[in-house]
Amino acid sequence: MQTIDTKNNTVPDDILSPIKWRDDSLQLLDQRALPTSERWVTCRSLEEVIRAIQSMMVRGAPAIGITAAYGAVLAYRELADSRQAPADQFLSQMAQLAGARPTAVNLGWAVKEVLNLVDQTDWQSLGDALLALAKKIHQDDLAANLAMGESGATVLAQGASRPGAVLTHCNTGSLATGGYGTALGVIRTAWKKGVIDQVYADETRPWLQGARLTAWELQRDGIPVVLNADAAASWLMAKGRIQWVIVGADRIAANGDVANKIGTYGLAVLARHHGVRFMVVAPQSTVDMSLPAGDEIEIEQRSRDELLSMAGQAIAPENVDVFNPVFDVTPAALIDVIVTEKGVIHQPDASKMSSLFANE
Amino acid sequence: MQTIDTKNNTVPDDILSPIKWRDDSLQLLDQRALPTSERWVTCRSLEEVIRAIQSMMVRGAPAIGITAAYGAVLAYRELADSRQAPADQFLSQMAQLAGARPTAVNLGWAVKEVLNLVDQTDWQSLGDALLALAKKIHQDDLAANLAMGESGATVLAQGASRPGAVLTHCNTGSLATGGYGTALGVIRTAWKKGVIDQVYADETRPWLQGARLTAWELQRDGIPVVLNADAAASWLMAKGRIQWVIVGADRIAANGDVANKIGTYGLAVLARHHGVRFMVVAPQSTVDMSLPAGDEIEIEQRSRDELLSMAGQAIAPENVDVFNPVFDVTPAALIDVIVTEKGVIHQPDASKMSSLFANE
Repeated sequence: MQTIDTKNNTVPDDILSPIKWRDDSLQLLDQRALPTSERWVTCRSLEEVIRAIQSMMVRGAPAIGITAAYGAVLAYRELADSRQAPADQFLSQMAQLAGARPTAVNLGWAVKEVLNLVDQTDWQSLGDALLALAKKIHQDDLAANLAMGESGATVLAQGASRPGAVLTHCNTGSLATGGYGTALGVIRTAWKKGVIDQVYADETRPWLQGARLTAWELQRDGIPVVLNADAAASWLMAKGRIQWVIVGADRIAANGDVANKIGTYGLAVLARHHGVRFMVVAPQSTVDMSLPAGDEIEIEQRSRDELLSMAGQAIAPENVDVFNPVFDVTPAALIDVIVTEKGVIHQPDASKMSSLFANE
Repeated sequence: MQTIDTKNNTVPDDILSPIKWRDDSLQLLDQRALPTSERWVTCRSLEEVIRAIQSMMVRGAPAIGITAAYGAVLAYRELADSRQAPADQFLSQMAQLAGARPTAVNLGWAVKEVLNLVDQTDWQSLGDALLALAKKIHQDDLAANLAMGESGATVLAQGASRPGAVLTHCNTGSLATGGYGTALGVIRTAWKKGVIDQVYADETRPWLQGARLTAWELQRDGIPVVLNADAAASWLMAKGRIQWVIVGADRIAANGDVANKIGTYGLAVLARHHGVRFMVVAPQSTVDMSLPAGDEIEIEQRSRDELLSMAGQAIAPENVDVFNPVFDVTPAALIDVIVTEKGVIHQPDASKMSSLFANE
């Protein structure tokens, strides 16, 4: 049987992870406070974990999945001493956890992994088993990111005679994952290999993940980053400054359609118009083979406040109507490459997806 | 000779104008303070006018032109009592005024009108003549907007069996002009005529003209408006929610290429991809027949601060590099209609432009 360090987890010191298991509690880097302050918040209950996910203290599809797995550990511990049918209560809590946010598939996937474990494990042993699972999900995610970094950088290098510039949207880095990042992981590896020499980061309204998180991560790593308004991306392409658009995913359907941060779809249309190539980087846990196509993906609408105020100050009339979808769906036909840790798919379609992910 | 009311000007009471000549001074509605407060600022010197233009207290190509014309009046009055060659000083100040912002042609156009007047008028009579010119530019702009509103609404009505929805970008309303607006003027008239039933307003980063100004103006008029992040526009189009994109212009080249707020070009590409039609509305004073094509238009880059902080709070790492062009250029080939007060051009090109604006 695997030995578990129930006190701490171990992501290598040189890789930032926004999620830490320390002294029997979950520590999260509060992403709402970046880049002005690096604040770590400790979660000791499932309720705190759900609140952290809903309030976007933690965000990014893979990071949400990992956080949920640690949340299950905390839920178990809260129930461990309960007298009446703790297993039933645990299952109902897991359903609550799965519904914390609707679009990212990794959340539901992590909860499903937890439920599989519950089926196979007696209640007494479940605590250790859940912690081992959470750590495995965390470490597997990091390993997947490092592998995708290599594969993605190799794709970028193919046919490139000199280093190029890439545009990314939202944050897909260490902060969105168990560490290193998906799209930003590819960018990190490609930069180390000299395949790219410049990163443009969309600021990514309304939550400004690009401005607040991606710019911060890249600067921290010494990778040249230029910040631009989302609406300036098309002008960068028109000026020939971008060779690749590289983004992550919140859910990938069986035909290769990709749900990702609002604006991704527009970038894909613009990239195609300008002959700029378009890469999606996401771990297998993001793939949802149960959904035939992207139009069945539920798109979360977030609070109107995200568009009406900023830093506590009104930036629009207070009672104006708002359209604030957080994600959109990019059809597979606009995607040149999907990079996963299981393999790379060029010009994705249902048949290529099913060959790679037949057993998902 | 025309009688001039040197005290006040007269835009009809039911039309908001952000520019007022009152009691021998220029009053500007401070657009930096909207929508939270309606603050009027009085300018009594050319220096104050230039600062108002540069700081975006007043913005929008036509409004900048009108403000400049009143600025010339103030400059004249400051010099009127000067002993030494006031005319020379006046000319040098007009050069300064023309350079206050580079992209909008209306600023240079208004200064040119002032200089033509200087050529034809002796110094003693120039004060009254300049005030008459400023008021004429102001009133002509308003009249042009009302005429464009009619023509644009007629174009929208053609072939439309029922009211539709339009998307607009930036602010092109009363606040950007002498009153009523260009693109927003068309929207106002089309709403009154029942040709459109819904307006989507891009928030328009980084300055948020859409959120702060367009939403405010439309709400004030009771026109149904929904605010969206710039990056959500493509998703609105994909969902079939938009029939027309309607925007203004800061400069139109002789071939019909249009410089306008950053993001306009991307909207034009996206509109074409989705079969959504694309209309540009601008007065003749925006047309620059001396420029053969849009690629010769100088694009202003504004301060990095616009992307790095908001309401005094940092929203990005403080020393990150920034790409912050304020305008982009939309090629004529992506534009379905240009509406001016002189006429409407469908599928604009150099030959149609030169037929309509041969004498400009």
